[in-house]
Amino acid sequence: MNSPAPHTAPPLHITTSPRVLVVGTGAIGGYYAGKLAQAGAIVSTVHHSQADFDAVRHQGITVESIHGDFHYRPFSVHREVSEYTATADILLVAVKALPELDVARLIRSAVRENTVIFLLQNGLGIETEVAQMFPLNPVISGLAFICVSRIRPGVIRHMCYGRLSIGLYPHGEADCVKELSSLFAASGVTCAVCMNIVEERWKKLVWNAAFNPISVLGRHATTRDMMASLPMRNVIENVMREVCRLANAEGHPLEEEAIVQKNLSETDRMEPYKTSMLLDFEAGRPLEVEAILGIATRIARKHALPTPFLDTLYALLKLATR
Amino acid sequence: MNSPAPHTAPPLHITTSPRVLVVGTGAIGGYYAGKLAQAGAIVSTVHHSQADFDAVRHQGITVESIHGDFHYRPFSVHREVSEYTATADILLVAVKALPELDVARLIRSAVRENTVIFLLQNGLGIETEVAQMFPLNPVISGLAFICVSRIRPGVIRHMCYGRLSIGLYPHGEADCVKELSSLFAASGVTCAVCMNIVEERWKKLVWNAAFNPISVLGRHATTRDMMASLPMRNVIENVMREVCRLANAEGHPLEEEAIVQKNLSETDRMEPYKTSMLLDFEAGRPLEVEAILGIATRIARKHALPTPFLDTLYALLKLATR
Repeated sequence: MNSPAPHTAPPLHITTSPRVLVVGTGAIGGYYAGKLAQAGAIVSTVHHSQADFDAVRHQGITVESIHGDFHYRPFSVHREVSEYTATADILLVAVKALPELDVARLIRSAVRENTVIFLLQNGLGIETEVAQMFPLNPVISGLAFICVSRIRPGVIRHMCYGRLSIGLYPHGEADCVKELSSLFAASGVTCAVCMNIVEERWKKLVWNAAFNPISVLGRHATTRDMMASLPMRNVIENVMREVCRLANAEGHPLEEEAIVQKNLSETDRMEPYKTSMLLDFEAGRPLEVEAILGIATRIARKHALPTPFLDTLYALLKLATR
Repeated sequence: MNSPAPHTAPPLHITTSPRVLVVGTGAIGGYYAGKLAQAGAIVSTVHHSQADFDAVRHQGITVESIHGDFHYRPFSVHREVSEYTATADILLVAVKALPELDVARLIRSAVRENTVIFLLQNGLGIETEVAQMFPLNPVISGLAFICVSRIRPGVIRHMCYGRLSIGLYPHGEADCVKELSSLFAASGVTCAVCMNIVEERWKKLVWNAAFNPISVLGRHATTRDMMASLPMRNVIENVMREVCRLANAEGHPLEEEAIVQKNLSETDRMEPYKTSMLLDFEAGRPLEVEAILGIATRIARKHALPTPFLDTLYALLKLATR
């Protein structure tokens, strides 16, 4: 009997000039797609805003970067995912993680047999639905450590940082992950390959769950403003500890003491920094409240763990963005 | 040997037409002084703002009240306490409770041998310094349950509620307290006499410590906005419980369950209401962060009681008003 081999480890390879379709061509998507284009990728972009679409179609995308400005023209520019009729090797999803946005449905028309889905988004649990909907496609989950902002249609400003962490979702390794990492490396982006990307998401949440909400609730507070207040440092530390305990309960043991101290001391050394949530807030964009705090409080309830600090930030942020 | 009797229970009596000097003639001070004037008191006022001083000197004070509008002209109008050279029977202090404001020093020149000091302020511990500085004067501590706002110089709008709770500080009874209560009653103000006014302050703090900060942090949230969110109701309830436990540790046992449920259900039944802290915030005035939250967190540290919800609100409010 001649049964097909189970489709467990996709034999997918990323060529040196992959076709990349970017869904959510904001600051993050536009920046990293530009780096992929520099490395030889054939980048197409989808823009949900008419102004962005018009600007990019006529002038391409300009990145004003601390590492040197650059400019690229997407191979094709679209208003809707469904307009893209080629076969993408990589679908780079960089939309915000918002409950009202059904990413699996949004990208459906562009997911072909061999498409690698690369989710470059903040928060926890952002891969679940996509992985369920496309069980045969490799899902690469990615975290961007970068301060980047779209300053007007077609123009992105890269202020600081820039490294990536990527990994096969939910864990493990795959050639396509290494190949994607190499592609980024070719254009100068440090891109770590992680065997357990979900654990990396928890580590990033230790910082994000504290500083993102507090920067907004504290009325346009920079990292320095937040760290300068003794009562606030105490709250920040407690938020970090709560996230560590949740990660632990979820099977991702983080070294609480070391991670908390590292996050605090690194933030002390940073230049005054506006969080991405504060930038969104100031621009009147929706905030990733659920992907960053809501899911943490729900995981706390599941494990019957008390998280009073997270609970307070979550309730306040929901109220403040009602 | 003929030694004088110890000056423990001041034999002070308030006449039917007492001289009242109002320090802090804002909405609260202006409203209740107006009621005392209606009851026959000879009211003088101190205004630190030139605009208020000018308006009141020329036109008196108008109160647009749900119970019927009224108008009164102070007997004398001043810029500084020291300008008042008569002997006040009652010094009505209705300034905000702010750390930078030394009330004892502010009123010093007007405190005479028989002056009753009536502190009508929010928060905890607001009497301490005044009682220390003037150990021979009776201090009446008062709480106003009222929604009242100064809408322009010389004009106060009384939106709802209006009752008072007053008591001899730190506890006990005195004729002057009953007489002050009668004076308010004569002009239609419900004024309860409390044997333990500090305990009443704790009871009021149960509500204030939750709703005042959250109304500001939640971006102009009314009581209804706050109660409409399930995660926020949970936070509110926990703040109330923390305050009850602090009161208990300070020797003021509050019936936690009953008080929390009463506060929640009464707030549910209220018309959407802007807290006094939110009104101050919207008017750009300083907030009573220390008298309402700071002192609670310091009492928690003293008793080594965990108060994560209060700690978070305090740190955020300090940051937001930096």
